[in-house]
Amino acid sequence: MPSRVYLDWNATTPLRSEARGAMLAAYELIGNPSSVHAEGREARRLVEGARAILATAVGALPRNVVFTSTGTEANALALSPGLRGPSGGPVERLLVSAVEHASVLAGGRFPADEIGQIRVTRSGVIDLDHLKALLREGPPALVSIMAANNETGALQPIAETAGIVHGAGGLLHVDAIQALGKIPFDIKVIGADLATFSAHKIGGPKGVGALVVAEGVAGLEPVLRGGGQELNRRAGTENVAGIAGFGASVRAALQALPEDAERMATLRDRLENGIRSMAGATVFSDDARRLPNTVLFTAPGLKAETAVIGFDLEGVAVSSGSACSSGKVQPSHVLSAMGYDPTVAQGAVRLSLGWSTEPDDINRALEAWRKLGNTLLKG
Amino acid sequence: MPSRVYLDWNATTPLRSEARGAMLAAYELIGNPSSVHAEGREARRLVEGARAILATAVGALPRNVVFTSTGTEANALALSPGLRGPSGGPVERLLVSAVEHASVLAGGRFPADEIGQIRVTRSGVIDLDHLKALLREGPPALVSIMAANNETGALQPIAETAGIVHGAGGLLHVDAIQALGKIPFDIKVIGADLATFSAHKIGGPKGVGALVVAEGVAGLEPVLRGGGQELNRRAGTENVAGIAGFGASVRAALQALPEDAERMATLRDRLENGIRSMAGATVFSDDARRLPNTVLFTAPGLKAETAVIGFDLEGVAVSSGSACSSGKVQPSHVLSAMGYDPTVAQGAVRLSLGWSTEPDDINRALEAWRKLGNTLLKG
Repeated sequence: MPSRVYLDWNATTPLRSEARGAMLAAYELIGNPSSVHAEGREARRLVEGARAILATAVGALPRNVVFTSTGTEANALALSPGLRGPSGGPVERLLVSAVEHASVLAGGRFPADEIGQIRVTRSGVIDLDHLKALLREGPPALVSIMAANNETGALQPIAETAGIVHGAGGLLHVDAIQALGKIPFDIKVIGADLATFSAHKIGGPKGVGALVVAEGVAGLEPVLRGGGQELNRRAGTENVAGIAGFGASVRAALQALPEDAERMATLRDRLENGIRSMAGATVFSDDARRLPNTVLFTAPGLKAETAVIGFDLEGVAVSSGSACSSGKVQPSHVLSAMGYDPTVAQGAVRLSLGWSTEPDDINRALEAWRKLGNTLLKG
Repeated sequence: MPSRVYLDWNATTPLRSEARGAMLAAYELIGNPSSVHAEGREARRLVEGARAILATAVGALPRNVVFTSTGTEANALALSPGLRGPSGGPVERLLVSAVEHASVLAGGRFPADEIGQIRVTRSGVIDLDHLKALLREGPPALVSIMAANNETGALQPIAETAGIVHGAGGLLHVDAIQALGKIPFDIKVIGADLATFSAHKIGGPKGVGALVVAEGVAGLEPVLRGGGQELNRRAGTENVAGIAGFGASVRAALQALPEDAERMATLRDRLENGIRSMAGATVFSDDARRLPNTVLFTAPGLKAETAVIGFDLEGVAVSSGSACSSGKVQPSHVLSAMGYDPTVAQGAVRLSLGWSTEPDDINRALEAWRKLGNTLLKG
């Protein structure tokens, strides 16, 4: 039996050996980082080591990194009414783009009537004129924009957005979960006030995320209260091994970034050209700047649910729209926001590549597509 | 150099080999449990396997187990206004005992003016007459009582409490974090409506907890929103490996429970007798039913912070009051609630044992205490 082809890296990246090694070492430590004895201090050092790695990697200070259990939790923590920064706030409302992750669309602690949505273009890029208009309409806003979309791979103009938001007295939160390790990302370069990251998208373990805050941003309201962990911003015993694995994966991912990105882009282009060569295929956001590893496509008559199962039976793991929402048979809110009708949105298949994707994986995915296409597109 | 003596098991238990094994196996799985391809389904099976183990262990149905990142998060999820059950609710206020963990005292989603505190006796056991009086005073309440206290080890009369609470139309949440694996715990036997557990207190990894709900209890409001994970009760990608490790540790802990509990109790009694033989020593909650592994004690003039450091230098890891609050130099709220004055509360040292505690560990702890006592008690 030929080995499986895994082209669903945006949902989950295989665990890096560096992360596994760091976690195995952490499992030898008994202590709770809140304990003052030697065992506790040793666990504390591990957590602080990972914090320093992530902080350095994204242009923040270690004390401004809050480890959480997931990107979802980090987003919930970020969307905190009352945030204020050196350049804006306190924020009284939330503006999110229509293509954000479900955990951002949920709005954190903002009441539903204080949340506005920023339109995106047909390419899935935020409409900056609409953002400007929304900012003019009311009091200082927290604006939440993802750096890169998890479904289409489209990059948002976040540095430009930061300038606009700050000019209007607001603050910018960037969900950088899909960007980290795939494109350069530095909160100071961008001018982001808050940014969210997740370990399992870069080869760290599932179950660890982080919110990073720019120096001078205050007023973050904890989601989880109780103990004084994470400088009173996130109560609960730290996932010590997971955090250590996160740190190791950040270091490994950023070291490999330039080379990995180039290799992935080459393979992605080959994959995309293969898809385009077939009758009626559409690649979404193909006129936008995109992540080097993502292709979201459809073809007339394609049903994503059936296609994912068909690819799976051919030994190729692919995704229908966002991973976090699969299982649901709802059309992608991302494609709806881009103006595609529900029939199109229900036919979108996502292929995402990673550092160990090989040319032969691309060949096999294209073979599967050729084979399946005939059947799948008949329906 | 002699090996370290670890007597801080209530803060963190060493990782069980069964948990480590389960996690290593999980690290080989690439998939996200929300993905429908083979890789995703395999990850899903692991999560559901662990869910079934925990459910069976505590008398619940698998569909009523919600995995979280910590006990703190599970407590936050549990304390949800609007909960209703077959036997009571919807609850409109919260009653917590004065000796609960900080994450329960924080009150979850209940506003501060809808939270009442139930007094405890000098032994740290809840005052059931006070509970009855509080229940009579207002609308149906959610009552949150821990099965066993993390500082004193005192057990609460939770089955009796459940009867009283249900009789008054309320619901009972039990923080069973310290109880699991140390005493038998079954939500059906007790009559609990909700119960909280944490993996790292039973030899599972840090960073995984669970809320278990009795069949027929509804109205749980998610803390983390976004994706549809955990049947829409807890959004965010699952900590697959951690959950697998939790399942393995539950199985191992419950298998070993009868034998471990007996051995720990014997050693604990020897430790306690040694402490008592010294001038003026007090063991807290010693006239209450207690966990088999915990001793909280003090002596005139003892300062806990200094004692913990002294023990540490002698190679013995002990704790001052609760692990989650160490680092703070505040007196234990548990001892304050039991009616001890702050001087006493600041002098409390906790020794907690586990499955690998040996007779020689007890000897060495007592030696350290004899050696330190002279110096520490002079001050």
